[in-house]
Amino acid sequence: MTGITNTGSNRMVLLSGRAHPELAQNIASELGTELVPTDAYDFANGETYVRFGESVRGADAFLIQSHPAPINQWLMEQLIMLDSLKRASAKSITVVSPFYPYARQDKKHRGREPISARLIADLYKTAGADRLMSVDLHTAQIQGFFDGPVDHLMAIPLLSDYVRSVVDVDNVTVVSPDTGRVRVAEQWAERLGGAPLAFVHKTRDITVPNQAVSKEVVGNIAGRTCVLIDDMIDTGGTIAGAVQVLKDQGAKNVIIAATHAVFSGPAVDRLSSCGADEVVVTDTLPVPPERQFENLRVLSIAPLIARAIQEVFEDGSVTSLFNGHS
Amino acid sequence: MTGITNTGSNRMVLLSGRAHPELAQNIASELGTELVPTDAYDFANGETYVRFGESVRGADAFLIQSHPAPINQWLMEQLIMLDSLKRASAKSITVVSPFYPYARQDKKHRGREPISARLIADLYKTAGADRLMSVDLHTAQIQGFFDGPVDHLMAIPLLSDYVRSVVDVDNVTVVSPDTGRVRVAEQWAERLGGAPLAFVHKTRDITVPNQAVSKEVVGNIAGRTCVLIDDMIDTGGTIAGAVQVLKDQGAKNVIIAATHAVFSGPAVDRLSSCGADEVVVTDTLPVPPERQFENLRVLSIAPLIARAIQEVFEDGSVTSLFNGHS
Amino acid sequence: MTGITNTGSNRMVLLSGRAHPELAQNIASELGTELVPTDAYDFANGETYVRFGESVRGADAFLIQSHPAPINQWLMEQLIMLDSLKRASAKSITVVSPFYPYARQDKKHRGREPISARLIADLYKTAGADRLMSVDLHTAQIQGFFDGPVDHLMAIPLLSDYVRSVVDVDNVTVVSPDTGRVRVAEQWAERLGGAPLAFVHKTRDITVPNQAVSKEVVGNIAGRTCVLIDDMIDTGGTIAGAVQVLKDQGAKNVIIAATHAVFSGPAVDRLSSCGADEVVVTDTLPVPPERQFENLRVLSIAPLIARAIQEVFEDGSVTSLFNGHS
Amino acid sequence: MTGITNTGSNRMVLLSGRAHPELAQNIASELGTELVPTDAYDFANGETYVRFGESVRGADAFLIQSHPAPINQWLMEQLIMLDSLKRASAKSITVVSPFYPYARQDKKHRGREPISARLIADLYKTAGADRLMSVDLHTAQIQGFFDGPVDHLMAIPLLSDYVRSVVDVDNVTVVSPDTGRVRVAEQWAERLGGAPLAFVHKTRDITVPNQAVSKEVVGNIAGRTCVLIDDMIDTGGTIAGAVQVLKDQGAKNVIIAATHAVFSGPAVDRLSSCGADEVVVTDTLPVPPERQFENLRVLSIAPLIARAIQEVFEDGSVTSLFNGHS
Amino acid sequence: MTGITNTGSNRMVLLSGRAHPELAQNIASELGTELVPTDAYDFANGETYVRFGESVRGADAFLIQSHPAPINQWLMEQLIMLDSLKRASAKSITVVSPFYPYARQDKKHRGREPISARLIADLYKTAGADRLMSVDLHTAQIQGFFDGPVDHLMAIPLLSDYVRSVVDVDNVTVVSPDTGRVRVAEQWAERLGGAPLAFVHKTRDITVPNQAVSKEVVGNIAGRTCVLIDDMIDTGGTIAGAVQVLKDQGAKNVIIAATHAVFSGPAVDRLSSCGADEVVVTDTLPVPPERQFENLRVLSIAPLIARAIQEVFEDGSVTSLFNGHS
Amino acid sequence: MTGITNTGSNRMVLLSGRAHPELAQNIASELGTELVPTDAYDFANGETYVRFGESVRGADAFLIQSHPAPINQWLMEQLIMLDSLKRASAKSITVVSPFYPYARQDKKHRGREPISARLIADLYKTAGADRLMSVDLHTAQIQGFFDGPVDHLMAIPLLSDYVRSVVDVDNVTVVSPDTGRVRVAEQWAERLGGAPLAFVHKTRDITVPNQAVSKEVVGNIAGRTCVLIDDMIDTGGTIAGAVQVLKDQGAKNVIIAATHAVFSGPAVDRLSSCGADEVVVTDTLPVPPERQFENLRVLSIAPLIARAIQEVFEDGSVTSLFNGHS
Repeated sequence: MTGITNTGSNRMVLLSGRAHPELAQNIASELGTELVPTDAYDFANGETYVRFGESVRGADAFLIQSHPAPINQWLMEQLIMLDSLKRASAKSITVVSPFYPYARQDKKHRGREPISARLIADLYKTAGADRLMSVDLHTAQIQGFFDGPVDHLMAIPLLSDYVRSVVDVDNVTVVSPDTGRVRVAEQWAERLGGAPLAFVHKTRDITVPNQAVSKEVVGNIAGRTCVLIDDMIDTGGTIAGAVQVLKDQGAKNVIIAATHAVFSGPAVDRLSSCGADEVVVTDTLPVPPERQFENLRVLSIAPLIARAIQEVFEDGSVTSLFNGHS
Repeated sequence: MTGITNTGSNRMVLLSGRAHPELAQNIASELGTELVPTDAYDFANGETYVRFGESVRGADAFLIQSHPAPINQWLMEQLIMLDSLKRASAKSITVVSPFYPYARQDKKHRGREPISARLIADLYKTAGADRLMSVDLHTAQIQGFFDGPVDHLMAIPLLSDYVRSVVDVDNVTVVSPDTGRVRVAEQWAERLGGAPLAFVHKTRDITVPNQAVSKEVVGNIAGRTCVLIDDMIDTGGTIAGAVQVLKDQGAKNVIIAATHAVFSGPAVDRLSSCGADEVVVTDTLPVPPERQFENLRVLSIAPLIARAIQEVFEDGSVTSLFNGHS
Repeated sequence: MTGITNTGSNRMVLLSGRAHPELAQNIASELGTELVPTDAYDFANGETYVRFGESVRGADAFLIQSHPAPINQWLMEQLIMLDSLKRASAKSITVVSPFYPYARQDKKHRGREPISARLIADLYKTAGADRLMSVDLHTAQIQGFFDGPVDHLMAIPLLSDYVRSVVDVDNVTVVSPDTGRVRVAEQWAERLGGAPLAFVHKTRDITVPNQAVSKEVVGNIAGRTCVLIDDMIDTGGTIAGAVQVLKDQGAKNVIIAATHAVFSGPAVDRLSSCGADEVVVTDTLPVPPERQFENLRVLSIAPLIARAIQEVFEDGSVTSLFNGHS
Repeated sequence: MTGITNTGSNRMVLLSGRAHPELAQNIASELGTELVPTDAYDFANGETYVRFGESVRGADAFLIQSHPAPINQWLMEQLIMLDSLKRASAKSITVVSPFYPYARQDKKHRGREPISARLIADLYKTAGADRLMSVDLHTAQIQGFFDGPVDHLMAIPLLSDYVRSVVDVDNVTVVSPDTGRVRVAEQWAERLGGAPLAFVHKTRDITVPNQAVSKEVVGNIAGRTCVLIDDMIDTGGTIAGAVQVLKDQGAKNVIIAATHAVFSGPAVDRLSSCGADEVVVTDTLPVPPERQFENLRVLSIAPLIARAIQEVFEDGSVTSLFNGHS
Repeated sequence: MTGITNTGSNRMVLLSGRAHPELAQNIASELGTELVPTDAYDFANGETYVRFGESVRGADAFLIQSHPAPINQWLMEQLIMLDSLKRASAKSITVVSPFYPYARQDKKHRGREPISARLIADLYKTAGADRLMSVDLHTAQIQGFFDGPVDHLMAIPLLSDYVRSVVDVDNVTVVSPDTGRVRVAEQWAERLGGAPLAFVHKTRDITVPNQAVSKEVVGNIAGRTCVLIDDMIDTGGTIAGAVQVLKDQGAKNVIIAATHAVFSGPAVDRLSSCGADEVVVTDTLPVPPERQFENLRVLSIAPLIARAIQEVFEDGSVTSLFNGHS
Repeated sequence: MTGITNTGSNRMVLLSGRAHPELAQNIASELGTELVPTDAYDFANGETYVRFGESVRGADAFLIQSHPAPINQWLMEQLIMLDSLKRASAKSITVVSPFYPYARQDKKHRGREPISARLIADLYKTAGADRLMSVDLHTAQIQGFFDGPVDHLMAIPLLSDYVRSVVDVDNVTVVSPDTGRVRVAEQWAERLGGAPLAFVHKTRDITVPNQAVSKEVVGNIAGRTCVLIDDMIDTGGTIAGAVQVLKDQGAKNVIIAATHAVFSGPAVDRLSSCGADEVVVTDTLPVPPERQFENLRVLSIAPLIARAIQEVFEDGSVTSLFNGHS
């Protein structure tokens, strides 16, 4: 037989966009390695430039990018980095987007709208991604938007372990802030030992014009500790409003728990003054000092992502991190 | 300039698989036309054969297939018909699947599962489909699984108009049979003039081994007419169990409303004996005489689909059928 | 250089659908391993569910499925398993379909027909297959339907070795049951030491209305042992009819040899009573006890498939199994 | 509604490569139009240049190219013309290749071979073709190689009408020159009123080293007029050899009929001296004066292609040209 | 024949992103129509939302977006609008990007860089674009990055007609500001009646460390009017430096002409103080009042784009707008 | 865990078309291996056949083909070899085309032209190529035509090292033969220690009909050694004309340096008699003895390609061969 033969070896490399470098560095530290040095900057007219400082040829590349505002900027940077990796002959490319961008536009709410969450999946694929890793997708169906393997990590164990350590689980009710998250509340309830459920919803008699909308709690919360859960907190309006209603209707105290701390606009004001006893989030998105407040608790997502990357690289099982649930 | 010029015209044709020919014929009648005559049969070893009886070259083809059991059989027939249409030079092909197959496998509930609902969308595309039309998708995100336009029709107006005509809306509570459908219950509540909401959920103390699961109602239903809603009724276990709990906890009476009458296995027995006053469904799936029972009401979906096809063919607006909501 | 390096290794896994588990188990045994444990069942409405019991991440997966009736059922199961493998990050996926489904619909016999055999190849690809392995394709051109490597195994050596052991090769004529298989008969003739050829065909004077069709043998068969060959036996009508004509025209005895034992409908009756001395087939399709009869001989295809899988996994040569012919 | 509306019209244009301009011009004449004027030439290093002399924007383009030697040259020219049409915004592009190139490499005869006929289909698609039209494909399965509609025209009616006019059909045997064309011979036999069949095959005792190969006729031909049929005549070796054997075994006379007159190398010598009474072909390939000989009859394929183009352009039925057979 | 037939008509619609609405409105006015009313805004976390105010089903859609800073923002908005158009069943979608984004990253200048200009073409295609229209691409090869028709419009006629009206063409030298634009300078020279050429380049003895770079003019410019041309002016450094050198080496006066007024950072200062007599640009990018200065002349590109859109819609010839050159 | 595990190894194989076997053999020798033995020939009608003599399953295949005339012939051969490699289960396929075919048709110079250079990239991809390697692309943008990694090698170091060894660099001017190569001349100038630049261009007063075109030199060349550079020499007309003008305007002597020796038609006559002192090229294209002449110097490109292949196979860095420039 002609040709040249050698013994194969596999190399894993980590790369990071500029949106949340601390998270990427923490993941690298957890794995005992460093990020590939990368030049990235914007030209005067806003065009983004990237170049990797060392060869990635033949490597299993994990490209970590977070998506705070300005989200379109970080998305384009990520797509350009994907193109660079593809053209630099990486063997495989895994996009690590802890907070999946545009996750809320996951369907046409009305005619002539985009389905941006599907578009994002297609853009990743086109730019070169082979696999996707994300944490607590807004809806689990987004897994199906990507044409390839998706590793869907869950922060609920991390968050609920913490919550369990600070509350009396016998007096807890898990509350969904609207009608669309009751299923997730149910998963929380199971993790908190079978706690009862409640949800808040807006009500309105649509047959009476101009009637005011009022919020109602369905479920038993009087005198109880409410764990108000959501996947993300954006401007904080819904969640702060829910705290108010819960308090009005007799809740003893309220703990807010959410994976993604978007914290846009008035979010910090609302959260710090809404009456919640504690707000627990993870650092899938950066929470800079000016957006931190007294009763905010930020848990690190880096260990979870690092373990998942290791399982992927070593052909282990990501599923095993969650007892069979992905 | 060389060449030959003529004035264009558009032709729309309707085709049907063998799963539910009555529905297809009703749609054709609504539109004032007939189905393309089609030879379709199975060979002795189960392979399916189809051939159209007239040319479809250059036509806008609408291929109607319903998906009762044996669902894999009707799916393959539909894919083979798509291949025929593509190779016979149809100008455009719209798949009309009133009940989207495998809609419940729309995410990985656990690792190493398929996302069959995405797979179906890709199979349709590969076989030749340009556009998809369906009714009340199990989750609206399935729209994003298909790489092309999706016309998502809604049976809620049809069903709720009927329910409104048979109940006292002032004494109605809309009930979701589990935690995943509360959002849809909310839409129903709006259509019934701002009715209150409730939901049923299974509860269990996971810290106590072997403890029995019990069902609970969250929300106020005592003395009220409960409209128990769902997108589909399969074996009827969940929904019949919910009727029982509602009755136990003081509901005055219960009406069940669902779009898709899957009615598998013990469904008919359960529904006819569960204590519900009426069960209202549409005919997106065939309901043969042997599965009909006394207090079952089947509303025809054909007029809605026919109007949507007409809008598509005439470049009108499907959105306009639902006041902006698709 | 940053990153983490390890030494690669390759893992091969075997998976099986539910259509013919014995074959898959035999292949596994030949290879000295076991099938990946798999949950597979149908829901009440006929939707198929599958989940693998262990991780297949990074593995070279061989998915074995046979295609007896109900063929559409087994096809959809196979597609869904492919989707699972793809989403579970298998490194490569080889579809092993010993009897290629819909192989006879490999062209448009008339206008407005599908080319289902091409469609199947595209569905496999879309669902996630990288490579295809099959035995004795109805026409070798089907290799070109799949966009990727196809390992086309041949059962003729297996079958002809057996036949050679039970006949007097000096008195044999190889007979094609119709005009489309004469080329294959020629290959058989070579393997049997240059035996003469014959074929049966239907004849009819199309200028005389309603004239009966009669069958004719072209070639010399009087007083000879006829080896009547085909790639598959479906309902057995053609082949049993051919035996009759051969006997009528003086054949001494007849042995039927075919790769795929479809055995639909009246096949067993026809074959057991047609006058053939022996019927030799392989187990690419299951032949359950109720379809077995006295002079039927079923040869095991498992060793051949096992060796081919081993060559593929070890980057050897499948071609070498057939002396350069694939 | 905003926007601008006009009444649509359709324009069909014909384009031709340089391989066989007479055929393209004859097709245009049949349709009553002219070819789009086209600049096409080769640069000194062999690169081909093409440019169309008038706009094809929005037109249904039919690109006619024949494939005599040097076949790779004409193929590349055709692909480049497709690219031009695509980039010039033609509405649809139909490749018209009367003799499908590389049709004989339609499967892997041995391992590590290409399947060039599938490759050609993919190259057409990649370069911009939406639809394919061809005459008498070497194997009908090639239809399935192209991912789109294929209009497969048949010259058998044209050829057999002619043959029928020059022979006594009661004394005719249809003969296949090898074992792979017996099915086609059968179609001819039907068209000639149910004529009997025969075929020629090479025979050899493979157990005896160095034994000479001899040709044999299977079927009854003594004293009869043999119509020796094939899809193409390349170097003429097989067909001329078959004439010899037929004559040797008592055939009264022999007429050769084939669709594609490849006529490579010694073909003209062989055909003109082999003893056949007449050789009937079509002009799917150019037959220049120096390759014509006394008893050669070339029938024009242009009317058939012209009618098919017209049916395609007017959304009629190509199938109707052949009574349901495509 | 079954089915419903109607007479076709075509509708063209114009849509615009938020980057440069004046240009889109001017194009609409030139065409005598209006833009489709569109809701577009950003959510608090920077995610972009769009929805069209009327149906675009079946329409030929032209989506106009300009790309000033923040360029990634406008790109993502454009991609999202494309997704909306595709899912809303537009018949065809033409992206109109007068200034092609990332055009300067059209190759890897060094290893491990992206080719962002190709990526953009692929993103457009993935999001739904069928055709692309742009003005004066940085390099004409970018046409080849898009897999479909590209209408490449040229502003040189517009700009050179203006320049010709304000200079004495007998005393003009056309100057390229660097070595990469000399070919374009040559095209200008032809349009100005065969004017002589010159170019500026940086020179440096690379064998002497730390030697200063100096600029040199190659060509005859003493006492002449220099028309300094470029495709775009970004920060203005190169072009203002070139003016300086030209003046230093005896140029009588200098006119700057460029298609795209990027005008980033210090551009306005540099241009207004560099000594150029006039700066002529088009409005492919917005030039807001604060970036205008005394000797700036902005020519409207809207009439050219409007005519090109009209040709595309009416299946005319865009090439004809430029005498055969596209 | 089920399955079989082994230790991986990688195998690299080299394959060559028939266009320039010496180059491929030299590359193999540099790497210390041999080419895979390959059967390749043309059938009588010009169809090309290829088959590899040993298994390439699982190998990293490098397919070397050069593209002299007849270029379409060698292109089709290369595409067919790609198809063979793909179907024979090569793990990865790198196309090595030292002279990229059709590179000059890299844009539409006028409407209705093809962009053949993009087409070639797409044909390579369709036929099975994963990666592309080439030397001195006519324009670097061609890198962006291929959807995958491109290794763009540069012969300038090789050529300029040689030129530097035979000239007095203090008296050198680098000359571009037309306006489109001035940028490349600048790169040469840097490598020759900051030499001055000049270019030749055609001039013509387009306002005066029938005026003769004359050539002009822009830049200082009197009394200097001119290094006249280009990427390729085709018929040699432009370059020989440039030598003439340089000599007429006082150049002391002229050395021509180009990467690709196309040498079509009158090239050898022109080059050997044009007055150039030396012509330096590489052997990316074969230069057969009959096209060699006295003052021609052919440098071997094999070592450069061999090193690049080695870097690719061993996951090293091709970029490192050129100090960061690809």
